[in-house]
Amino acid sequence: MDIIESLKWRYATKKFDPSKSVSPDDLQTILEVGNLAATSYGLQPFQFVVVSDPAIRQQLVPFSYNQPQPAQASHVIVIAVRTDVDAEFIRESARFTEQVRDLEVGQLDGYAKQMIGAITSMNEQERLLWAQKQSYIVLANLMTACAVLKIDSCPMEGFIPAEYNRILDLDAKNLHASVVLPVGYRAGDDEQQGFAKVRKPLGEMTHFV
Amino acid sequence: MDIIESLKWRYATKKFDPSKSVSPDDLQTILEVGNLAATSYGLQPFQFVVVSDPAIRQQLVPFSYNQPQPAQASHVIVIAVRTDVDAEFIRESARFTEQVRDLEVGQLDGYAKQMIGAITSMNEQERLLWAQKQSYIVLANLMTACAVLKIDSCPMEGFIPAEYNRILDLDAKNLHASVVLPVGYRAGDDEQQGFAKVRKPLGEMTHFV
Repeated sequence: MDIIESLKWRYATKKFDPSKSVSPDDLQTILEVGNLAATSYGLQPFQFVVVSDPAIRQQLVPFSYNQPQPAQASHVIVIAVRTDVDAEFIRESARFTEQVRDLEVGQLDGYAKQMIGAITSMNEQERLLWAQKQSYIVLANLMTACAVLKIDSCPMEGFIPAEYNRILDLDAKNLHASVVLPVGYRAGDDEQQGFAKVRKPLGEMTHFV
Repeated sequence: MDIIESLKWRYATKKFDPSKSVSPDDLQTILEVGNLAATSYGLQPFQFVVVSDPAIRQQLVPFSYNQPQPAQASHVIVIAVRTDVDAEFIRESARFTEQVRDLEVGQLDGYAKQMIGAITSMNEQERLLWAQKQSYIVLANLMTACAVLKIDSCPMEGFIPAEYNRILDLDAKNLHASVVLPVGYRAGDDEQQGFAKVRKPLGEMTHFV
């Protein structure tokens, strides 16, 4: 399977070549694969914040524990979770589904009610964690798409969300930075690229019942 | 990109054909793609619990809010997070990396210390959530692998972890059920398969900075 070869090729790139840039077409493909991620109830409780502006990418570095990837990569994709997933948002999502599937308006009211019950039974913190989990499915899809396109990436949890939110004005958009993926092309002298991939053997990772 | 076509083909299968079974080779491929998932520090804080036994799959149904997929699918892949990610586990992981990369024993001691600092600064609940997030990257990889192989799957968060842990004896293995993926082949009359895929347009999902 090609994906296996692609995922073996992938590694968490520590040093990007700042002179190389991901093409608009490839960026579009990567985001499209991310947007096809499965999410809880299909609610897609996230948005992509794609940072290409070099000055802003540089501003992110001190709030990324001084990791240089946000500055050196071609684009920084911030997967931000929505903080506005409420009854109204869910009803609108149901309306959108009715529209896409040529259903009558109101046909999904019962299902919307069920979703609203499930989501609003969570407190704010639980809802954030629920959305964050979904954002990791999106992250995985982005990484796979990059790998298939031979584009490098580096998943990053080591950053200060409140500062990312401030710099990218996410609070005003009802968003919260969840996980970050700089994308671009590896530097020729990133020594990490020569290291053997380390995965525990599948036999040690699996129990059969 | 083939992945896009595959992910568009994928849907959360509500009704599996219980007469069809995923082949051992395909199952191996799916798990291999899951095992190639990126995880925080490469620590792989999870294990696969693959349930094929029909009686046990049936037992899972009442603790899955009576969703029939665990009983009807070919295999239920439970992604369980490790509850034993401590200093010793991390040191062993570093030893294993040294071995795979032909490094001298002890060469990664400093890095191990850094990881231990980061992980043990989290309390038990935070560590569980940290591992659960990683498990969603694994979930995404499994779903993508299935889709590429034209194998159906249904990601499930709607289950009672404590009961899954009990039935599958996970506590004794220092594991905790995080998220569940029944895999198999769709039933011919699963009406969901005819529904148009619903995704908000990428333009509405993306902010450019």
